[in-house]
Amino acid sequence: MTAMARTDPTRMPELMSHDRGQLDALLASAVVGHVAFVSQDGRPAVLPTAVALSRDHLVVHGSTGSRWMRLVAGVPAAVSVTAVDGVIVARSTFESSLAYRSAVVFGSFQVLEGVGKAAALDALIDRLLPGRTAEVRPSTAKELAATLVLAMPLDEWSLRVSDGWADDPVDDVAGPAWAGQVHFGERPIAISPAPDLAAGTAVPRSVERIRGTQ
Amino acid sequence: MTAMARTDPTRMPELMSHDRGQLDALLASAVVGHVAFVSQDGRPAVLPTAVALSRDHLVVHGSTGSRWMRLVAGVPAAVSVTAVDGVIVARSTFESSLAYRSAVVFGSFQVLEGVGKAAALDALIDRLLPGRTAEVRPSTAKELAATLVLAMPLDEWSLRVSDGWADDPVDDVAGPAWAGQVHFGERPIAISPAPDLAAGTAVPRSVERIRGTQ
Repeated sequence: MTAMARTDPTRMPELMSHDRGQLDALLASAVVGHVAFVSQDGRPAVLPTAVALSRDHLVVHGSTGSRWMRLVAGVPAAVSVTAVDGVIVARSTFESSLAYRSAVVFGSFQVLEGVGKAAALDALIDRLLPGRTAEVRPSTAKELAATLVLAMPLDEWSLRVSDGWADDPVDDVAGPAWAGQVHFGERPIAISPAPDLAAGTAVPRSVERIRGTQ
Repeated sequence: MTAMARTDPTRMPELMSHDRGQLDALLASAVVGHVAFVSQDGRPAVLPTAVALSRDHLVVHGSTGSRWMRLVAGVPAAVSVTAVDGVIVARSTFESSLAYRSAVVFGSFQVLEGVGKAAALDALIDRLLPGRTAEVRPSTAKELAATLVLAMPLDEWSLRVSDGWADDPVDDVAGPAWAGQVHFGERPIAISPAPDLAAGTAVPRSVERIRGTQ
């Protein structure tokens, strides 16, 4: 278990978690992750992309024409997956902070092919539109060939979880200011049919299933 | 104007935006950004942190004891700020995608002091708890000395905006599958007082003002 090998245990060690189940839950609930790598000129690059868990790997996908997808394959990378859960409100601005869960996975992405590639694509679409694959035509060979799918093993990672109440000094606790937590809930969804949709086409179950997943 | 100098205009150029107002709106609405840099061992590092706009700079803050805050000051960095707005549902999984706004700001962070530091801290707290500074005691000199505030100018950046409808091929448009967009709305909030809060302490306006900002 090499989790957290490259993190900083000296700061706020009480926020660190070694719980693989908690990591999996965060990654499974994520919509996007932020992938960092060192670009050809030696400078850092970062960009957001849809992520999913598939066969014990963090998977991403993109076009074979995507420059960053080709650059990131096989080189050291770090993927940050973050959920902001609320605001921990203290009696001072100094002690106030975010409630969050933050994972960073370190490693390198390998190109997936065959059944691993198909499973990863299913996982990616299922996160956003649960069950969509069964509602639409299969991807064509041409579409699959135009799609690059990358996987990073969950070998080295760190996880921080911040929740609960602020740690106000006693003078502040005795003062008049409010303290507590503001929790953010699931985002509501609104569904709009495409302008060229044939009249009477029902909203599919995969779209209805998005409710409560964001 | 050096926006997008290090981005990839060959992919989906129709998604690129050069609109500074659109960039400012995204950065002002963000809660967290993801900061990437090259760590001392040459490998990429990335982590989430609260961001705000202050005096035409992207600002972040942390403890002076934070290793990453000290590492990132003065070296090349990239900050990704992303808003996921929904899902663009196509008649195939291949053509389906996220609706999003994604900015990446390139540059290096400089340490702020004095009035610039105070303004940045106000901007950071105001994003999360609008008006909170006026409700609580001022930060002490000791608290300010323990806080590192960093600013990156908005000189080099890229912005992508994906919205609207999928571009399904005609054969798919003629088929039975649904297409449209699922829009994600603002997150609802729930307010919990701290267990040690004095009875009768009213929820402050700054906390009530969070509604509709997430």
